[in-house]
Amino acid sequence: MEKNAIIGKDIPRTDGRAKATGAAMYTDDFKLPGMLHGKLLRSPVPHARIVKIDVSRAKALPGVKCVITGADTPKIKFGNWRLFPATQDEYPLAVDKVRFIGDEVAAVAAIDRDTAEEALELIEVEYEELPAVFDVDSAIAEGAPVIHAESPGNISIDRKINYGDVDKALAEAYYVREDTFTVHAVSHAYLEPCSSLAQVDLDGRITIWTSTQTPYIVQCLLAATLGMRENDVRVIKPYVGGGFGGKMELRTWEFCAAFMAKLTGRPVKFTLTREEELAYGRRRHPMKIRSKVGFTKDGILVGKDLKILLDGGAYNSMGPTATFLCGNFGAMLYRYPSYRFLGEHVYTNKPPAGAMRGFGAPQSLFAAESQMNMAAEELGIDPIELRIKNAMVTGDRIPGVATISSCGFIESLKAVARMSGWKRKRSRLKNGRGIGIGCYSFISGGVFNWFNTQYPFSAAEIRAYADGTVHLLTMASDIGQGSDTVLKQILAQELGLKMEDIRITSADTAMTPQADLGSWGSRVTLMAGNAILDAARKIKKQLAGAVSAKFNLNVIFDIKFADGRVFAAGKPERGMSFGEAVAFVQKANRGEQLVARGSYTPRGKGLVTPAFSFGAQVAEVEVDKETGLVKVEKMWTAHDCGTVLNPMAVEGQLDGSIQMGLGYALSEQFVMDGGKTLNTTFLDYKMPHAPDMPPGESVCIETYEPEGPMGAKEAGEGLVSPTAPAIAEAVWHATGFRCKDLPITPEKILRGTGKL
Amino acid sequence: MEKNAIIGKDIPRTDGRAKATGAAMYTDDFKLPGMLHGKLLRSPVPHARIVKIDVSRAKALPGVKCVITGADTPKIKFGNWRLFPATQDEYPLAVDKVRFIGDEVAAVAAIDRDTAEEALELIEVEYEELPAVFDVDSAIAEGAPVIHAESPGNISIDRKINYGDVDKALAEAYYVREDTFTVHAVSHAYLEPCSSLAQVDLDGRITIWTSTQTPYIVQCLLAATLGMRENDVRVIKPYVGGGFGGKMELRTWEFCAAFMAKLTGRPVKFTLTREEELAYGRRRHPMKIRSKVGFTKDGILVGKDLKILLDGGAYNSMGPTATFLCGNFGAMLYRYPSYRFLGEHVYTNKPPAGAMRGFGAPQSLFAAESQMNMAAEELGIDPIELRIKNAMVTGDRIPGVATISSCGFIESLKAVARMSGWKRKRSRLKNGRGIGIGCYSFISGGVFNWFNTQYPFSAAEIRAYADGTVHLLTMASDIGQGSDTVLKQILAQELGLKMEDIRITSADTAMTPQADLGSWGSRVTLMAGNAILDAARKIKKQLAGAVSAKFNLNVIFDIKFADGRVFAAGKPERGMSFGEAVAFVQKANRGEQLVARGSYTPRGKGLVTPAFSFGAQVAEVEVDKETGLVKVEKMWTAHDCGTVLNPMAVEGQLDGSIQMGLGYALSEQFVMDGGKTLNTTFLDYKMPHAPDMPPGESVCIETYEPEGPMGAKEAGEGLVSPTAPAIAEAVWHATGFRCKDLPITPEKILRGTGKL
Repeated sequence: MEKNAIIGKDIPRTDGRAKATGAAMYTDDFKLPGMLHGKLLRSPVPHARIVKIDVSRAKALPGVKCVITGADTPKIKFGNWRLFPATQDEYPLAVDKVRFIGDEVAAVAAIDRDTAEEALELIEVEYEELPAVFDVDSAIAEGAPVIHAESPGNISIDRKINYGDVDKALAEAYYVREDTFTVHAVSHAYLEPCSSLAQVDLDGRITIWTSTQTPYIVQCLLAATLGMRENDVRVIKPYVGGGFGGKMELRTWEFCAAFMAKLTGRPVKFTLTREEELAYGRRRHPMKIRSKVGFTKDGILVGKDLKILLDGGAYNSMGPTATFLCGNFGAMLYRYPSYRFLGEHVYTNKPPAGAMRGFGAPQSLFAAESQMNMAAEELGIDPIELRIKNAMVTGDRIPGVATISSCGFIESLKAVARMSGWKRKRSRLKNGRGIGIGCYSFISGGVFNWFNTQYPFSAAEIRAYADGTVHLLTMASDIGQGSDTVLKQILAQELGLKMEDIRITSADTAMTPQADLGSWGSRVTLMAGNAILDAARKIKKQLAGAVSAKFNLNVIFDIKFADGRVFAAGKPERGMSFGEAVAFVQKANRGEQLVARGSYTPRGKGLVTPAFSFGAQVAEVEVDKETGLVKVEKMWTAHDCGTVLNPMAVEGQLDGSIQMGLGYALSEQFVMDGGKTLNTTFLDYKMPHAPDMPPGESVCIETYEPEGPMGAKEAGEGLVSPTAPAIAEAVWHATGFRCKDLPITPEKILRGTGKL
Repeated sequence: MEKNAIIGKDIPRTDGRAKATGAAMYTDDFKLPGMLHGKLLRSPVPHARIVKIDVSRAKALPGVKCVITGADTPKIKFGNWRLFPATQDEYPLAVDKVRFIGDEVAAVAAIDRDTAEEALELIEVEYEELPAVFDVDSAIAEGAPVIHAESPGNISIDRKINYGDVDKALAEAYYVREDTFTVHAVSHAYLEPCSSLAQVDLDGRITIWTSTQTPYIVQCLLAATLGMRENDVRVIKPYVGGGFGGKMELRTWEFCAAFMAKLTGRPVKFTLTREEELAYGRRRHPMKIRSKVGFTKDGILVGKDLKILLDGGAYNSMGPTATFLCGNFGAMLYRYPSYRFLGEHVYTNKPPAGAMRGFGAPQSLFAAESQMNMAAEELGIDPIELRIKNAMVTGDRIPGVATISSCGFIESLKAVARMSGWKRKRSRLKNGRGIGIGCYSFISGGVFNWFNTQYPFSAAEIRAYADGTVHLLTMASDIGQGSDTVLKQILAQELGLKMEDIRITSADTAMTPQADLGSWGSRVTLMAGNAILDAARKIKKQLAGAVSAKFNLNVIFDIKFADGRVFAAGKPERGMSFGEAVAFVQKANRGEQLVARGSYTPRGKGLVTPAFSFGAQVAEVEVDKETGLVKVEKMWTAHDCGTVLNPMAVEGQLDGSIQMGLGYALSEQFVMDGGKTLNTTFLDYKMPHAPDMPPGESVCIETYEPEGPMGAKEAGEGLVSPTAPAIAEAVWHATGFRCKDLPITPEKILRGTGKL
């Protein structure tokens, strides 16, 4: 592909100005006439049978317009795995039982928030408490309390992968090691708390503005739980202040807003508080990971036996997908001739874990990359050398699962070694300063269809106008990651237009083409991008025909689209402006508007993803031996996201990933007691802030991903994974202490180095 | 066409509940963050050169954010006849000259309306007054002041029609009469004053919510006057409280809202007051009509020579179209073997006349029908008999202009005669009680394209879903006439669905298919209806294929769509639900959404319209001989609107027409002095109110209009025309006084009957 001023250039975000000036309207900014404010009553106990709920006093409070409990609802369970209805284990409001502290029991809609909150206190719930479990080992132990009757052993789903002969390989290996790692829950901590505003239209249909990553999924599941037809629900995604996986399911407040709007005839809005988000919100899966891995004497991997217990909390939520993915990520990055995986998704009486940026990879790769570092030490091979020996390359296959269609992994490893001065710095050891490496691979969207959509995975409509502009309609959701910008870039590039020639309408399930599965799994650029290219090429075919007809061109001429013109390649004077070409086609079609639809659905791409990204990261740390405090001095990153469509946008993803990776590695955690989250404010929940960010250097290893739009693939999530293992290794390098249990707190370091 | 429960049934308006409960959002109901309120400074003099404008004091007033005059604007003239740019004579704000009392000179945007109004008083304008003219005769007289330099004789456009040999026919006629009629200006008096709210989006594009009948026309003209690209302007029509022709052009406040939103970066709203509407707003064209008509001894028409001077006020506005149409209406209803028309559009220093319900017909038909009644008297033929002798019938042609493809006129005449007890009542004469007849024909949309659209006249998109619902997208504008309801009916009928299966999105220029010329000329049912049928048939073709494939049907089978099912005609068990058929097609298309677009552009339909409606009306009046007060005792109406799609909706149109017809005939008028409108409130501007409405009986003479959707044609405007001539004739019948000068006031009657 030729490059021009659009692809590969630092194009500022199209939403930048609106956000900087405050003009951007997030869901909670919408105020409708007669609007009611909703609040949720949540369980104060981790596991109990609901004996009785009395809402009469709440209903009697002046200003309260509606109070509902599970008994008032259609009692239809939901969950993202529609293909396997048995996995759908959640009611919009609790029916009979509560399963975690925060489980939603009732909802109130009142004329203002204060009144709604006051009404919550007037609802009387009688609970019969049940024994509860808070960790996976207790949950799967003999005689543990059963959280869902359908899953007597508290394992809701498992996932197996098996290829090669792992037992034989490990038995014959020169070097085998087995480790158990534990990783913890962290919060998405999106800046915008969840918010939903529902309105009933004149025909009884529901329109809901909601802070979501997945308008289409919310549309389908909300309609199902309301007992309505899918297209009687319209989901509009306004500006969204981040999601990171935490806003990709139907949620209780979406149901309640819609259901109570139907009951009252008035718009109903729910906006969560930060305390609710931190105390009861979705979070990254804690996992217990047992990994056994074997090498030849030369350091060549021979096999891996991986078992992961996922702590799913009280409901499946996105757990089934996490179970699937962490097994896949365990097989990535290196060539494992044999591999066995068993993942089990375990219920506990804690807030459900959901999807979170990296989704299965940060956990799985913390284990895998830590183990590579440990193996390197014991094999006496430099960790980067060991990785290069085993690194995947383009064309590699995971039997029956995936084929690697582009791979810049080895180049990434070499790049971070060079950038960081790796060899020189590794010669020091245990002097309080250390350097370590972690690597990642990630998916560019999923090929699985557990949601069982009947539509293309992504679709696009392009309307071309004689004034030289086009209108792009897509259900793809910009949740702050910048997809509106990059999708416009792709289209502008393909049609030879400028950014300002394109109007985009995105993420409105009634107006944009059905469907798009949403913003998760780093799928948007590749999938929506491909759908857009499909549509754009149909437009181009017609416009090329216009130029060919108008200038009576030999049929072998190639027609180019550049600089707002459509013209014969090599004979630019035989051409016209884009708008003139549209007008010509329109005349030829007796006035009909020039419109094309395109779509993308991955087919024949294995079980996981159409394209894998790769990368490597080196962290240098200074560890205070007295306090155990880790200061990350610098980060070097090299990553292969295929063609870099917008370097500035990629850099933003990298910065955000490092911030999240730092928090995951060092400081963020939920402090819990008996199922209760104790740190529910940003004062107590310790995220790295801007002053905590280390300086960094990065390089994009450009490859061309054949399945990606213009060669692009994932850039938004994979980078969240290497930071923790790189820091863990750097801490070992600085101190000799190996931490297999995230986060790497000062306390653990002091204990590990014998200072406590 | 077979009928089922949808077509031909009283389907309630889909917007009824929203309007009845107050949930319907009209433009002025929208409030955006940071919104400014705009006000217009208007000329206090009827004709003047602007010497100087000083806005400095206004700008200095705290709370004022923007003040503009014509000098600040791009100074681009606009008008609906884009095909003839010379007719575009209006600036968004006056440049150099003002031409009527109310001409917009400057605009202010401030933080609230009071501040904006206060600022208006601080703008200092120095005018050099010019002589002014207020009637057509003075305006075209030798030496009259020139209002527009481009039209030295103050005639901006003329229109001629000529066929047959009129001079010969009239010279040879047995009976010839010549009359001059004058008709006056009346107000649309829509309930919702004009309002526009504009916002600049993050890319610098304009979105404008505006009370308009013609979103597409506003989009194009607004973009042009702003110097922007057409599709950088998005026009959204919210609920509209009536238009009647008064909201079908770009208007100053639309320009000012958009332009000042661009200047300030803040949303800007203009809402007119009732006083502004009545004092300065568009109005029906006053006309001076000289008509000469000849008959044979048997009462057969031989020719007509018609000359009309239109009093256009200060700008062309919709005058060119009015000039064209009043000439066409002059040739309608009866078979004129020869016809000559000269229409001249004259500038005067009064508020511009615009389009108004009936548009040219009420004026032209008041003259024509009055003259038929007078001729009947003098020929000694019953007026209904005379009409039947000359009435148009299906297949009649106006040479080079139109062919009548369906006509229920004679049946209408016979029906009103029968219903009203015509023969019996006509035997009385001049006893204070009288009965009279008036008739009409009207268009079902125009085939002319003076707007020079490059798009189909109407377009529709239909998206069909597996849940058995469809989404209809159309730019057609429901302005209160009920088009959203009737268009859903047409689609539901065609697809065999229920009303509630259809979601409609209408009148948003960015989202609905380009284009639709708007709601005027009774075009929507026919044109948008046909576009919808075109799209629906494409959907049906695919669904029929699904049933044929699934049930392996012989290709000769007819497939039916009824009761939410698609099935083999005569073998209903070989079929499936509509939604299942959609799902089948979608599977066959590998998930692609089932979408079809349709369009309608009249071709080969002459110069005027694809279809003419017809009808007759009888009025019975009681005239108080002492006071001259006319009380309309009863109205009988028979009208041919083709297939009656929704009797209740047609009845609503009839009631509204009678109300407007009564006001036009008897009570409504602008009292003016030196170009100044004196009656600017609904206390002084005398519309008939509900208690003034006479009882009525009506009958629809059903014909099948081959060009109309399911045989339908116009029902919304034609009926406004017969009332005035019917009442005038009834007054003559009651009193012996013939009024050729509307309105028929008590004073005129007393003078005419010698009582004054």
